[in-house]
Amino acid sequence: MNMVEIICKKRDKEKLSQQEIEYFISNYTSGDIPDYQASALAMAILLNGMDEEEISQMTMAMAHSGETLNLSEHAAFSVDKHSTGGVGDKTTLIVQPIVSSCGVAVAKMSGRGLGFSGGTIDKLESIPGMRIDLSKEEFLSQLQRIGSVISGQSKHLAPADGKMYALRDVTGTVPSQALIASSIMSKKLAVSTNAILLDVKVGKGAFMKTIEDAKSLAKLMCSIGRYNGRIMRAELSDMNQPLGYMVGNILEVKEAVSMLKGEPAAPDLYEHCIDSSAQLLQMASKAKTFEEGKKMAEDALTSGRAFEKLKEMIAAQSGDVSYLDDTSKFPEAPFVEVCEAPEDGFVAAIDAQEVGETGVELGGGRHQKTDPIDYRVGIEIHHKVGDQIYEGDPLFTVHAHDEETLAYARLRLHAAHRISPAPVNKLPQFYGIVE
Amino acid sequence: MNMVEIICKKRDKEKLSQQEIEYFISNYTSGDIPDYQASALAMAILLNGMDEEEISQMTMAMAHSGETLNLSEHAAFSVDKHSTGGVGDKTTLIVQPIVSSCGVAVAKMSGRGLGFSGGTIDKLESIPGMRIDLSKEEFLSQLQRIGSVISGQSKHLAPADGKMYALRDVTGTVPSQALIASSIMSKKLAVSTNAILLDVKVGKGAFMKTIEDAKSLAKLMCSIGRYNGRIMRAELSDMNQPLGYMVGNILEVKEAVSMLKGEPAAPDLYEHCIDSSAQLLQMASKAKTFEEGKKMAEDALTSGRAFEKLKEMIAAQSGDVSYLDDTSKFPEAPFVEVCEAPEDGFVAAIDAQEVGETGVELGGGRHQKTDPIDYRVGIEIHHKVGDQIYEGDPLFTVHAHDEETLAYARLRLHAAHRISPAPVNKLPQFYGIVE
Repeated sequence: MNMVEIICKKRDKEKLSQQEIEYFISNYTSGDIPDYQASALAMAILLNGMDEEEISQMTMAMAHSGETLNLSEHAAFSVDKHSTGGVGDKTTLIVQPIVSSCGVAVAKMSGRGLGFSGGTIDKLESIPGMRIDLSKEEFLSQLQRIGSVISGQSKHLAPADGKMYALRDVTGTVPSQALIASSIMSKKLAVSTNAILLDVKVGKGAFMKTIEDAKSLAKLMCSIGRYNGRIMRAELSDMNQPLGYMVGNILEVKEAVSMLKGEPAAPDLYEHCIDSSAQLLQMASKAKTFEEGKKMAEDALTSGRAFEKLKEMIAAQSGDVSYLDDTSKFPEAPFVEVCEAPEDGFVAAIDAQEVGETGVELGGGRHQKTDPIDYRVGIEIHHKVGDQIYEGDPLFTVHAHDEETLAYARLRLHAAHRISPAPVNKLPQFYGIVE
Repeated sequence: MNMVEIICKKRDKEKLSQQEIEYFISNYTSGDIPDYQASALAMAILLNGMDEEEISQMTMAMAHSGETLNLSEHAAFSVDKHSTGGVGDKTTLIVQPIVSSCGVAVAKMSGRGLGFSGGTIDKLESIPGMRIDLSKEEFLSQLQRIGSVISGQSKHLAPADGKMYALRDVTGTVPSQALIASSIMSKKLAVSTNAILLDVKVGKGAFMKTIEDAKSLAKLMCSIGRYNGRIMRAELSDMNQPLGYMVGNILEVKEAVSMLKGEPAAPDLYEHCIDSSAQLLQMASKAKTFEEGKKMAEDALTSGRAFEKLKEMIAAQSGDVSYLDDTSKFPEAPFVEVCEAPEDGFVAAIDAQEVGETGVELGGGRHQKTDPIDYRVGIEIHHKVGDQIYEGDPLFTVHAHDEETLAYARLRLHAAHRISPAPVNKLPQFYGIVE
């Protein structure tokens, strides 16, 4: 077998055999196949596609390219959730404690933000002391002990994906359903969780811009997971506007904690978290129906059990939970400015990608993987699409580390809002469920 | 400007600007763009194509990626010919002296064989003493002095092509018309010859398998050349069977010398050489018509002027011309076996690629660029497609360095011949002219 022949087959729209896919993945991981051959193949895959069988085989080859994590001795049944990335998405901080407080073990590896899309790991790191670099042993024992654990993606799991992703990022080969699906699912399948809920974002602030693309990616990932014995479900959720009110690391932790404390929450965030929790509870057979799952999730919130579970997990990972009990302890950005609506009307659009990119420019995200983050900065949205507003109403609040970035953000966020004189419908939170 | 954006544009079927093409070529040549980005772009170009303007611009960027050779002070008018590569193609050894002996300067840089296709430089090196690594000054002064010079491809001319070609060879991105045309033409346009005749081979022993592909490649290269002020013409010539009777380095030199001495030649080789010579003489305005060019070429042969011109060029490049006067001085392969026709019939096919590959296996070509060559070995074809043969007639002769490769070649060459009980038409030598 040789790599040039494999490239030529895919170039000529032929189907690769399992042996060829495994040969590529294992030799690329070991360094025996150079980047310039892998990138040529990636481009051929992007342009000529792969069928479901090829994608499943590639995903499994990547999942088995390094260590795998067997949870079965540490949790009889465990679940995972994965979001394809969005702006203001703090649902993991809420859904994970809800579900685990209902007795379903949640074992999650999560990523950092890159580009306009935030990452749960960055948000958690804004809590003083919080450790996200757990060893395999720590991860497993915490799962067993408290039924809830979250860690940064281990480099030992699915190393082929780490290598491929870095290469795709610099060779224009990111937007391929085959490569996106295998990348996401290889990391998931390297861990033996029993059920996986995917949150596939769709809209201006998501990588999938159309419902059609999001649906086909979701279907593909569900079938890869099922093919490998996992219980799968995917939500298609809106990412045209930011999720909830807050965008920024500390701001989002505060918003999540506030909801877990039973305080009034952004309706879209509330709906999303209850829905995702109910899906997971039903997938784990903890709830018989989706409605029962929703009720369990709401109970976990109102009883305070979910908040206690979050604190238990944070404490287990050395985070200082006094910041959660009293979120005013978190440092504030030095420049905070409330910006007002310039006219009467209805909010017609809040461009999520623009808001996400503004957050990065404020210092809350990264251009390069090694850029430092200012956890304090961010954006507070006061109204959602469909809301009626009047001139002078608070429209958004900027939290900045200096006046220059504040002025820049103010300008860009005004432009990201579109106000219509006529009433506008609210955006749906979900566009469907794929199984 | 950045390379990822350039890759993404071509991936998305957009047209690249001249600035983007020049940015890619100059930064790839300098090493600032890594191979893995260049190979992703090459695959995107192969699958999504480029228009004529993009290809012309890429060709010129490659032609100007290193030194260029200005011939105008050394020859008022000069010509070049280029073959896309075939089996048994020794036409340069015949056409170059014919044309230059008619008073048209020929300045040629040529390649080595790779794969099943032979190279003129290897053939010339079988002549003891022959130098093919001329300096720029030697090349120019010989052109001025005797109007005929041939050298190996200089690494200083069109270095972008050398680098791109090596990369394409290992990334499955060779068979792209845009990349083939720009590769060939960039080397040609780095030298200021006034007219260029292309010999685009088509058939089983050529890179272009169909007349349609060969014609579109020929048209593309002619328009690139004309766009850059060159007089262009391309012959589409048959490469289903080997050209002439001989395949192998010394064997082919002997066949060329024999024809230049006025001895009976293979009809296809004779027709091809007279035709190509006449084209060049007409393109150089030495002959008013093609028919006049043919007559001039025939005169150059029968008068012995062409042979004298070959010897003059070989001698100028330190080659021992006594080997040309008496070709029996060349060493012979130790194992020579005449193989006979197994049955009566008509030769229906002699698979040129099979013959070429058998020549490589005999030791006359290379698998890797650094493989040594045995100049003595090769294959003599005794009949061409369409010939009537009888059982026991000599069908081919193998020249081998040991019995093992001889036995292998015998088997493979019998299989490469197809004999039909019914009469078979001769193959046409040419499929047309493109301008």
